[in-house]
Amino acid sequence: MENILWQHIQHLKNSVPLIHNITNYVVMNNTANALLAAGASPIMAHAQSEIEDMVTICQALVVNIGTLDEYWSMSMINAAKKANELGKPWILDPVGAGATSYRNEIIAKLLELKPTIIRANASEIMALAKVSNLPTKGVDSTAKSNEAIEAAKLLTKEFASVVCISGETDIILGKDQKLSLKNGNALMAKVTGLGCSASAITAAFAAIIEDKFEATSAAMALMGVCGEIAAKNSAGPGSLQLNLLDKLYNITENEFITHLKIGE
Amino acid sequence: MENILWQHIQHLKNSVPLIHNITNYVVMNNTANALLAAGASPIMAHAQSEIEDMVTICQALVVNIGTLDEYWSMSMINAAKKANELGKPWILDPVGAGATSYRNEIIAKLLELKPTIIRANASEIMALAKVSNLPTKGVDSTAKSNEAIEAAKLLTKEFASVVCISGETDIILGKDQKLSLKNGNALMAKVTGLGCSASAITAAFAAIIEDKFEATSAAMALMGVCGEIAAKNSAGPGSLQLNLLDKLYNITENEFITHLKIGE
Amino acid sequence: MENILWQHIQHLKNSVPLIHNITNYVVMNNTANALLAAGASPIMAHAQSEIEDMVTICQALVVNIGTLDEYWSMSMINAAKKANELGKPWILDPVGAGATSYRNEIIAKLLELKPTIIRANASEIMALAKVSNLPTKGVDSTAKSNEAIEAAKLLTKEFASVVCISGETDIILGKDQKLSLKNGNALMAKVTGLGCSASAITAAFAAIIEDKFEATSAAMALMGVCGEIAAKNSAGPGSLQLNLLDKLYNITENEFITHLKIGE
Repeated sequence: MENILWQHIQHLKNSVPLIHNITNYVVMNNTANALLAAGASPIMAHAQSEIEDMVTICQALVVNIGTLDEYWSMSMINAAKKANELGKPWILDPVGAGATSYRNEIIAKLLELKPTIIRANASEIMALAKVSNLPTKGVDSTAKSNEAIEAAKLLTKEFASVVCISGETDIILGKDQKLSLKNGNALMAKVTGLGCSASAITAAFAAIIEDKFEATSAAMALMGVCGEIAAKNSAGPGSLQLNLLDKLYNITENEFITHLKIGE
Repeated sequence: MENILWQHIQHLKNSVPLIHNITNYVVMNNTANALLAAGASPIMAHAQSEIEDMVTICQALVVNIGTLDEYWSMSMINAAKKANELGKPWILDPVGAGATSYRNEIIAKLLELKPTIIRANASEIMALAKVSNLPTKGVDSTAKSNEAIEAAKLLTKEFASVVCISGETDIILGKDQKLSLKNGNALMAKVTGLGCSASAITAAFAAIIEDKFEATSAAMALMGVCGEIAAKNSAGPGSLQLNLLDKLYNITENEFITHLKIGE
Repeated sequence: MENILWQHIQHLKNSVPLIHNITNYVVMNNTANALLAAGASPIMAHAQSEIEDMVTICQALVVNIGTLDEYWSMSMINAAKKANELGKPWILDPVGAGATSYRNEIIAKLLELKPTIIRANASEIMALAKVSNLPTKGVDSTAKSNEAIEAAKLLTKEFASVVCISGETDIILGKDQKLSLKNGNALMAKVTGLGCSASAITAAFAAIIEDKFEATSAAMALMGVCGEIAAKNSAGPGSLQLNLLDKLYNITENEFITHLKIGE
């Protein structure tokens, strides 16, 4: 598995896929930089007058609802529809799922469009299952990844999506597949938007790898390993943000293979 | 005083309050990272469809008008009303007060809603007093903190707000209280949005400390001391931005106490 | 020439012109920081209710269409009209020219307003000539700077603009002038928005230098030399972003003169 994931990472750097991001204001700069560092080419665009045209020229789409509003939500929905029409992969990052009824309403509409991949933390995954009226237990804002597995499985079944629950352990669930990754560092939670970067990099791999379970696994492995190495050399979250971008750019096969921790 | 302020800083790290930011596009990433580094949890949201719900789940609100427009202004006003209704503290950062008549018009509406705390530079504070038809002298774009004290006192009286004039010296004014802080470094003016970060961190302290004068003082002391230490190790403004985030995260009691400069 | 450019760089630091940016969400923070580091003072504002007032108080305007939409496009057009009315220089950065028909439509409207300076990469310059129905060959997304010279010359003639084609070699074209600059480093393409920063810094020089060909040359020389020096000390794109801001702030005459590479 390690070798397959590393090959995917190399493949990304050689492919430079164009990734269309409809994402939140907080993370746009870091998301663009993370995509560039990992080897993809980012586009950020949201105007209703060009959203379908942008989906058409890109190879994958990220829909991240962090700072959604009425206008942007319509763009997200139209973009996801266009991606489906063209058979292009699109990734849903349901930031703040469960926080407000408006957010849940938009999430419900996006889920109906069957995201290729969903990446979120445990609480958000549990909120998604609830929004979709799937028979799951309630949302727990302090939930750990393994507490959300039941909800993630329901989502995988209902929407045919690959689901990634990110956290101290990242759990990736496909139709009949499951992978746990145990990389990362607690300091990563002190930098805003690393989850958003992970979603964007997931889109980059999904753009070039047919198997979306493997694409998601490669993205989460790359982010986890680079974040872990970067954190070791960081005095705080400011340094970590910089070191992570550097490491996404210059990680070697040896670093990747020796640090990767695949769980049960 | 030093010890009380340090206790508040520790208290923030242990409390992790949820802070709702309606702020400008330029600083969103750094504001979120500054809040995380200091120990709070940031939310950025502005949609009219969820703005009251977001105020409801957060413990304090920041209204920063830096890149305001007609839609966002309405969100800011609705959020401030909701915060008042729920008795939650909210901080006004009137970026660019006095620059345009539209900006002044929105500021006047926000001031009517009696911000818990106002944090701004000397020129902006003087512009605020003028906007409110308070009997103060004209706006001076190069004003120093002590030149704005008269205007700040009028604002404190008129709106029952704690007022912080930030600059080379930070001056915090409560109903019958006044504190001067003389930390910081000239290089901080070469990094965009450190004032905006200070406002957000003020909201974080206001969320957990009953006495808003002390809350504001703790925020300005933390930013000033961390900025001063960070600047000493910085070759320029790029380094300073990184080092400041690291220092907000890893500052020790000894560093804080030995660097803090409380004025007359 | 080296000495004139360095004098302009010193002049900028002493003048601190106020630069109005209507730019994209991705780069706002870095653009503001680059302007501050180089010695200018940035304002970001886009509200239709204040856009003309902001143009009035600033010394130059940047219009960058990276994340344009219907509302922002109107603000851009109104701001450019106001700048023309007041005789203030404005810079067009046509990010993504040619990508969608909507983007081309807005670009056509902006070109009609005769930007003082246009700064873009080779593909965008070729797309601009095509949008304007100038008799040029088709757009090539991998075009190098010298392949876009014909298109740039046509733009210079048609709109009386100074045109800068940025890339591995930066080429600046005036009415009867041409300058090639060969600084920079390939790593710069891995950091988002350095072109956008270059456009903003071009506006800063245009605000204080009568000769817009020299103003553009000074901006591109400063960015190219600082980027090249910064890249040498950078382990990856994260470090480069930081080191570039530091170098824009602390570059010395000796560093500038010894690194500057002026072409044929």
